[in-house]
Amino acid sequence: MKRVGFLLLAVAALAGVAGYMAHASGQSDGGAAPIFVTTIPPGYRDWRLISVAHEAGKNNDIRAILGNDVAIKSYRERTLPYPDGKIIARVAWNYEPSEENNKIFCSFVPSTCGRPQSFVAGPPKNGVQFMVKDAKKYASTGGWGFAEFDDGKPAGEAVLKTCFPCHAAIKARDFVFTRYAP
Amino acid sequence: MKRVGFLLLAVAALAGVAGYMAHASGQSDGGAAPIFVTTIPPGYRDWRLISVAHEAGKNNDIRAILGNDVAIKSYRERTLPYPDGKIIARVAWNYEPSEENNKIFCSFVPSTCGRPQSFVAGPPKNGVQFMVKDAKKYASTGGWGFAEFDDGKPAGEAVLKTCFPCHAAIKARDFVFTRYAP
Repeated sequence: MKRVGFLLLAVAALAGVAGYMAHASGQSDGGAAPIFVTTIPPGYRDWRLISVAHEAGKNNDIRAILGNDVAIKSYRERTLPYPDGKIIARVAWNYEPSEENNKIFCSFVPSTCGRPQSFVAGPPKNGVQFMVKDAKKYASTGGWGFAEFDDGKPAGEAVLKTCFPCHAAIKARDFVFTRYAP
Repeated sequence: MKRVGFLLLAVAALAGVAGYMAHASGQSDGGAAPIFVTTIPPGYRDWRLISVAHEAGKNNDIRAILGNDVAIKSYRERTLPYPDGKIIARVAWNYEPSEENNKIFCSFVPSTCGRPQSFVAGPPKNGVQFMVKDAKKYASTGGWGFAEFDDGKPAGEAVLKTCFPCHAAIKARDFVFTRYAP
């Protein structure tokens, strides 16, 4: 899930999304089709890197997208749709200019002085996010279960239901925004 | 090594740096103290993530700093100075706005339309870089051997000799710019 922070709540208010929600809820109300992941996949911080990104605006984060072994293998082998068991993690940190780096830059290359040059990862952003592939279990959301954990606790349905409508636009890549960075 | 692309050559021209070079060269001219690494550490793309960063200006990259097991362990345990065997890799990609992401953002949150929002990793930048810790072998450069590989070939001494003068400013963290991002 490519989280777009402020987007999450904004999206929930949209009529079209609300329409989708009614549909998705209708499927899971029977108790047979959970579309959310409620436990943190263990060891995710040790997973290999898929790619990196920066979200500007209100997000103001710099992020890493990590993948379990199934995820890395299927990216490298271009297996689409992605196999069951693939898990993608999104970890983000505050996007911060590095005064330390900029000062050193400036001392070696005076033309950079006073310009923004180096941006680094500050404190972690709350909200580690995951997508877990299980074509059958999460059939109503493209085969993906979505999750967000804030201080280790799963986010509520109101938040998580905003994930898939946004990912639905990326159907050609099995609903995953992030491409593998070689 | 926190590469600052255009910095590399600019730095080489500075008198102070040239002075340092004479000293470092003097040590390695004897054939006993190589300060550069000439082979690519195998499997580095599978190493775990230390942190992420964005270098603006002429670099225009978004980058991941990866570490071998010794590197990750010593970061997490805050072992300073870092132990021999620690290797840090810097992999960078072109820093690019994502039209795909921005379009989807815009469709859900009209206030973001036309604004830069999402930046992703484009094609890989040439020049994968490494720092290898061996306190004895690389004693003349703070215990670190520096390397850059362009299209798999090691960069020349003129380039690599510009690494340590810049890293020398970070002596308190054993000459390593990047902090571990939890």
